[in-house]
Formats: sequence, C-alpha cells, structure tokens
Amino acid sequence: MKFTSEQRFDDGVIERGFILGEIPGILWTPAAASAPAPLILISPPPLGLSKMYPRLAGRARYYATEYGFAAATIELPGGGDRPGLAVLDQARAELRRVMEAGEPVGGELVDALVLPLVERAVPEWRTTLDALLALPEIGGPVGYEGGIISIGVRLATVEPRIAAAGLFAGSLVPPAMFEEAREVTIPLQVLLQWDDEGNDRQAALDLFDAFGSREKTLHANMGGHTGVPQFELDAGARFFARHLK
Amino acid sequence: MKFTSEQRFDDGVIERGFILGEIPGILWTPAAASAPAPLILISPPPLGLSKMYPRLAGRARYYATEYGFAAATIELPGGGDRPGLAVLDQARAELRRVMEAGEPVGGELVDALVLPLVERAVPEWRTTLDALLALPEIGGPVGYEGGIISIGVRLATVEPRIAAAGLFAGSLVPPAMFEEAREVTIPLQVLLQWDDEGNDRQAALDLFDAFGSREKTLHANMGGHTGVPQFELDAGARFFARHLK
Repeated sequence: MKFTSEQRFDDGVIERGFILGEIPGILWTPAAASAPAPLILISPPPLGLSKMYPRLAGRARYYATEYGFAAATIELPGGGDRPGLAVLDQARAELRRVMEAGEPVGGELVDALVLPLVERAVPEWRTTLDALLALPEIGGPVGYEGGIISIGVRLATVEPRIAAAGLFAGSLVPPAMFEEAREVTIPLQVLLQWDDEGNDRQAALDLFDAFGSREKTLHANMGGHTGVPQFELDAGARFFARHLK
Repeated sequence: MKFTSEQRFDDGVIERGFILGEIPGILWTPAAASAPAPLILISPPPLGLSKMYPRLAGRARYYATEYGFAAATIELPGGGDRPGLAVLDQARAELRRVMEAGEPVGGELVDALVLPLVERAVPEWRTTLDALLALPEIGGPVGYEGGIISIGVRLATVEPRIAAAGLFAGSLVPPAMFEEAREVTIPLQVLLQWDDEGNDRQAALDLFDAFGSREKTLHANMGGHTGVPQFELDAGARFFARHLK
C-alpha cells in the first residue's frame, strides 16, 4: 500500500489517496485518535470513485468527526480509470438492450451483471483490509457498507473480520445470493427505497428475510433509488457504533 | 385536569399522576426546562397503566433526560381500573374462541375488537391534549407513539396538533383503516416485528404502503411481538427530535 496524496481538512480529518497493487483507494482517519480507530469500509457504486467522491468523502468525514471511525474505499474492478472488464461491458450492453425492448431481466443476465464483480471485488477488499489493519492508527473491528449488496453478502460470509454490515437493497441480486444470504450471521442494517425504479421491492424483502443474522433491521424509506434520506447516514453510524466499540 | 401525585427522580424528571374527568394519566416533565418542552403522547397497550408502568416510565424518562421532551400517557377506555366495556369484552371472548378453534380472525371481528376502542380513545386523547398544552411547562409541537396502531391512524387524521407519529404495526387492523391511512400526511416511523406471532407481516407492509405521508420510515426487526430491540427507543426519540424542534 502506497500513499499517493495527503490532505488535512478543517475538521481535522486526514484524507489520503493510496494505491494497493493496481487498486486505487482513499483512506480517511479522524483527527486526534488516542486509540486505533474502528474501520468502516465504504464500497462505492460502479460509477467510480472520482464521480462519487463528494458523497463518499461526506460519509467518511461524518463517521470520522461524529463517531471517531476511520473509513476507506477502493475503486471497483472495471470502475473509474481501472481497465474495463469485457464480461461486464457485455452484460451491461445486454441489460440496456433488454430494458429498451421492455423484456424482463432474467436470472442469467443478473448473474452476468453481478457475479463477475463479486468474484473480483471480494478478494480485493480482503487484501485492502490486510493492508489497512496493518496501519497503527487503525484497529478492528470492521464494518462494511456498500452499494452493491451482493458484494456485501459474499464479504460477510467469507471475511470473519467484518463484524457488522450496512447494506443497500438497491441492486439486482443473483438467485444464488438468496441462499448465500442464509449463511450471513453478523448484525445487519438493510436500507430499502420503497419505490426504487430499478429494483423489485418483493425481492428486497425476500432477501432481508433470507439473511441468517439474528440481529437484522430493515429501514425502508419512501422514494426512488437515489432518494435515501439524509438521516439514514446517522442511523447507519449509530448501528456501527453499537457493534464496533 | 387534577394532579393526584408528584414524585421527583434523581435524574430531575418530575412524574405527576393526574385525573381528567374520569381518565387517569401520568405526566413526565424534564428537570430544568428553560422553554416549554415539546410533548410526546405515549398510548399504552390495553393491559393497563399500572401493569405497563415500568415500560412507560422508562420511555418517558429517557425522552425527558436525553431529549428534553415532556411525555404523557392516559388509561385506555376499559383499561386498568376504568369501567369495562361490554362490547370489547364480548369481542375479546369471541377472539379467544376463534383462536382456540383455529379459525381465521375475520374483518368483522377485527372491527369489533378495535373500532370501539378507537372511537372512544381518540376524543379522550384530544381532550388530554387540550389540558396538557394549557400547562406553561409544555409547548407544541406534539408527537404520538402508541401500541394500538389504529388509534394512531385516526388521531393522525383528525388531530392537526400531532406533528409526527411513531407507530407499532403490531395489532390487528380493521379493513377500513387501510383507507384511513391514505389520509395521514404527517411524518411517520413505523415499527414492525418480523415474526410477530399475533400479526400478519404482509398486512403490516400493506398498511405501511398505504400511508399517505411523504416521509415514512419502516423499521423492521427480528423477533416476536414483545421483542422490539432496545435501540429502537433511541431511534424513535431521534425521529421525534427531527420533527418536534
């Protein structure tokens, strides 16, 4: 892990760009931490880090200043300036075609859209976690929050260092993920936008039902995909505060 | 409104018993309020105030000490030491018979169980509100939270002084209430216990969907009717804090 930039904000938060192998990322750490800070991994949506920067940085700095958490994000496989993935580009082209034709989005297409991303992203997150937890200013336990729920599901099943996850039921879920969700046992807080245009409400409720966790909470709010209310940021932070201290 | 008792706790909260006409109630006010306190009405479950006292007082004192809210509750019609209501007793006997026989609980029986309570309780809450808001230590706006969701629905449609409501989707809902819910426009936070043995999950989701409010949030948690997690008390308080300041 090599730091490539450093910036200190008025609120004391230090933001550092890094590169890990070929993966670019950003790390935010709180001002004056007397002990190693708990860490929140923030997985970006596929749009890419630089496009999502204001939102990601806003969340990270809120976690740092209000709750003393460190936070980090990395570019998804195929995202931002990383080399494109032909398999994903093909699946996304097929999705556009299917949607323009008004056809239903079948399970195979959902698999093609999501699984290649999950298979590549999860090992990268684990490697990132190794590197971040080796820094003296960062301690465990670790929370994960993310835009593509299947990455969160897989990570929660395979990575024991993740102690709690805040998930957004806002993307297509491959059929096999419903089974994988049963293996998840860590505390979860799941966001659902009630009128999400690109997402099936019943499928989201079924996925919530499938999770094996004893503590899981669904927060459903009105509005479409991008309409998650601002107050859910603090509700998520408080969820992590209960589990990462 | 006549105060019948007064007690000051170590945390500074003052608890006063009162009687309003024939309705007994309890008022909790925060220690040192510099301005009139916003008020939360806490409607008890049908078990009666004295049986529910620890839970009600716990909530009220949390609101008072952590958020500076006043809180009040009154005995439901037919509850506690108040005269029984033959119509409710009959309906409850019929409910027991139906459940022991393993028959479904029909819409007419739900009406008989809930509507007489709603029709009597709502005017009593409004009278109580008149009396409470006349006290110098209490100001508006007013929040409502309560155990029987239909009372909250009716109150939210007819009482403009209620600015926000925290409801528990944990009781049977008369068919007509789904229509009435469409008229509710105030911000809502609705609790749902995912495995509530006495309550239909899909009906609760349908009721949440029916509410006309632009801001409404569903918090669904695992477990049965009495298993609402402790952290929802603070989540509810923060919801009120957003809307009652």
